Formats: sequence, C-alpha cells, structure tokens
Amino acid sequence: MFERDRAARGAGIVLEEVSGGRAVARMKVTEEMADAHGIGHGGYVFLLADTAFSYACDSYGPVAFAQGAQITFLAPAQLGDELVAEAVERTLAGRNGVYDVTVRTAAGTVVAEFRGQSTLVTGPPHSG
Amino acid sequence: MFERDRAARGAGIVLEEVSGGRAVARMKVTEEMADAHGIGHGGYVFLLADTAFSYACDSYGPVAFAQGAQITFLAPAQLGDELVAEAVERTLAGRNGVYDVTVRTAAGTVVAEFRGQSTLVTGPPHSG
Amino acid sequence: MFERDRAARGAGIVLEEVSGGRAVARMKVTEEMADAHGIGHGGYVFLLADTAFSYACDSYGPVAFAQGAQITFLAPAQLGDELVAEAVERTLAGRNGVYDVTVRTAAGTVVAEFRGQSTLVTGPPHSG
Amino acid sequence: MFERDRAARGAGIVLEEVSGGRAVARMKVTEEMADAHGIGHGGYVFLLADTAFSYACDSYGPVAFAQGAQITFLAPAQLGDELVAEAVERTLAGRNGVYDVTVRTAAGTVVAEFRGQSTLVTGPPHSG
Repeated sequence: MFERDRAARGAGIVLEEVSGGRAVARMKVTEEMADAHGIGHGGYVFLLADTAFSYACDSYGPVAFAQGAQITFLAPAQLGDELVAEAVERTLAGRNGVYDVTVRTAAGTVVAEFRGQSTLVTGPPHSG
Repeated sequence: MFERDRAARGAGIVLEEVSGGRAVARMKVTEEMADAHGIGHGGYVFLLADTAFSYACDSYGPVAFAQGAQITFLAPAQLGDELVAEAVERTLAGRNGVYDVTVRTAAGTVVAEFRGQSTLVTGPPHSG
Repeated sequence: MFERDRAARGAGIVLEEVSGGRAVARMKVTEEMADAHGIGHGGYVFLLADTAFSYACDSYGPVAFAQGAQITFLAPAQLGDELVAEAVERTLAGRNGVYDVTVRTAAGTVVAEFRGQSTLVTGPPHSG
Repeated sequence: MFERDRAARGAGIVLEEVSGGRAVARMKVTEEMADAHGIGHGGYVFLLADTAFSYACDSYGPVAFAQGAQITFLAPAQLGDELVAEAVERTLAGRNGVYDVTVRTAAGTVVAEFRGQSTLVTGPPHSG
C-alpha cells in the first residue's frame, strides 16, 4: 500500500515498521516544510503522525479509515530534525479503534502527541 | 508572513483573506497529495485547515501559536478538488483562543471540521 | 425524553429550548459541584454541555448518540454561577454530525467550548 | 485534597491510588446517573475520567489544571456497572502535560478513552 501513498512518499516519509496494530514512520523536516516562523509546519507533523496512524489501522488489512484525530503540539520541530512517529493501537471496540501516536525528535524530545479514531469501512473511504 | 511560509506555498495553498480573527485559504488536491486509497491524504486536508487557523490567529499580530487541534473527517477529498478552508475565531479568553475551520469542496460539501486552540507566545514558538 | 433523563435533572439542569439541530440548557453551579479547588468541577461543566449536545442531536428524533467530544476550559465556573449551554449543529454528513456547544455565565463569560461528534444509532446506544 | 472534592465524592467516586503521574478512581453507575436512554450518562463517565486525570496531574503537588480534554465513547456504561478509571501521564513538556485515562467496567470492557491536557497554574485555576 505504501507504494501507492504518494502524499507520504512525497514528504519523504519512510515506513519503518508495520505489525499488528502498530506502525513506525520517519520524516526529515526539510526547508520546504518551514512555516512562517521558520520552524516545521504543524501540518507536516500531523501528516507524519496521521500516516503512522493509518498504517497501524490498516495493519490488520486495508479496511479502516480515520474518522478524526486530535493533536497536541509540545515542542517545535526544527528544520533538519529527523522525526519518528510511533503509532500504537489503544483500544478496538467493534468497528471502532483508538490509536495513540507520539512524534519525537532523534534526541527523544516529544514534538507532538496525536490520538486518532478509526472505523471500519462500510462505504467509500473518507479523507484521513 | 505568507511569503515566508514555504510549507503552505509548497502545497499550493493560496491565502485569500485575512482580517480580524478570520482567514480563508484555498488548495487544490493534486495527485501528489493522494493517499494509498487514491484520495486526498487527510494530512493535507489538515495542513490546509491548520494554515487558515494560523493566519486567523495571527491576524491581530504575529504572536499566537497552535497548542493543539482536533479534526473530524466527514467526506473524502477527491483528486482535483478545489478545497476552501474558512477559519473563524470562536472565543478569546486571556492568552487563549479557540478557532473553528470548515473545509469544503467548491460544490459546498464539508470535507472536514477542524477546531484549533491557540495561545499567545511567551517563549519560542512550537510547531503548529 | 428529558423526563427520563435522571442524570441531567439530578444536576438541576433545565432544558430551555430544543428545535431543529439546536438546544439550550441551563444549570446552577452548586456547592455539591465544587472540586478540590473550590470551583465548579469541570465534569459538571461537561455534563451540562453534553446534555445540550444530546438534545440538539435528538431534536430530529431520538436516533443519534455521542461518539466523542472535545472540551476546552477557558474560565472557572464559580459556585453560584448560572451557566447556559447553547448547542448548535455545525454539519451533518450522512450518519455523522458535528455540534458546537458554548457554555457561558449569566454575565456572558465563556467558561468552556465543547465540540461533539454524533452518529446515527444502528445498534444499542453508547454512553454519552 | 480529595476531602474537599465535593463533586467527586457526591458522585460516589473513590480514589484508589495516586502516585507520580498516575491515579486510579472508581465509581458505581447508579440510577441517578441514567440518561434518557436508561444507560449511564456520558457526563458522569467524563466526570470519573476527569477526576482521575486531575489527581494524576496533581500527584506532583496541587499546581496543575485542565486546559482541555477529548473523550471517545466506546461502549455503554450500564446501570450498576462498577467503572474504574486509570489515568497515566503520557508526556510532560515544560508547563504542559498530556494524560491518558481509560475507563473500564469490572469485566474489563473499555467504556471510554479520555485524553487530557494540563498546564501549570500561574493564575487563578480554571474549571476542569
């Protein structure tokens, strides 16, 4: 699936690990990702976390999609930082899942905490 | 400020309007934004909403940053869609602000509802 | 329905208005609702907002339930405050709805901003 | 502090454990907590989770308060259920903290997943 994920690959995201309910993805914060303040744009931090989330969801088969997500920004992502997002399934209940994703710098500083809600697809997929 | 926002401009985002507590931004969903399901990646929908949010926050002066945000995905963003994100300040209370952003297609379908929490900067800015 | 809503009535919540996608509810912050800091417990502020949300959802018929909600606390609820929660439907998209609830004091200070996600019931209802 | 927490004690909440960044609280879902559908009101599930969250925050000293929280409802709380909420600190970053709270029945079914954002108090406390 990752082969077809142009958005993630275009951002230089590398998928390091996908297994039952878990995924790890990595992304370097490039100059092209700078916001007006000269730090990594929160949208790209979200893109990385959301990508890890979606592969953790789909690790059981390509049948889940994101209903929503919440992100808390805790530290700036500096240009040049190598971010790692680790997504872990927290709860599955029927069609619904809750996943936690932590985004860290290589030095271990937490840049953002993300929580995503997924649901099994019964119709056409949504964005997310 | 938008001149320096390489992330937003790199995604083809056009800032249409910024005024007291309000901002409107536009983005075309390109093939480069496709996720593994062939629709617009939720991360780019977030990037657009987050961009509108940040300019609405900063419309009073460049002093606020995002603490967090929550997004609900309601319909797929199809490749080729021209998305419009409209950010409106909901409440300001001391240092804290709450902003709502709706992302719609040109036809008016709501793709996502986003809510962001901002705070006035007293130290170095965070991602977001 | 409100007749059977023992939780809301037990907290002294009064439902003032329910119409298409909208509801207004009122609650006095009593000493029984004080938290350890001597102000109104955030759980009761949430209870009020969640009640307004659920009646706004159900204004079309008793078929929706809460999937989740997000609350931002902006000012303390003081003991004796008469809080008013106004819930408004923001978007309906197929089975899913997004509602915004603002909780204000009688003087108009915003105590909390709440956003709820609802879905049409197809099985037994969930909490919320 | 729990002695002064009239809201939590009034709902029959028992605080079982508080230690560095962690708290466990318990509450029986009584008939007084029934919503219009005859199940435990989501507001009381939130009250329990929020209480566990606040004691986990304050486990280092009474200096933090809730800025916001997000709850996902996953299964109904039935009348008579003995709910247990376990709050765990996820990340501390400067003045800001992120806490996760899982609410389970005695049988282990997850009723709700809650995530709270805290901040150190520098002025008068907010609700929550």
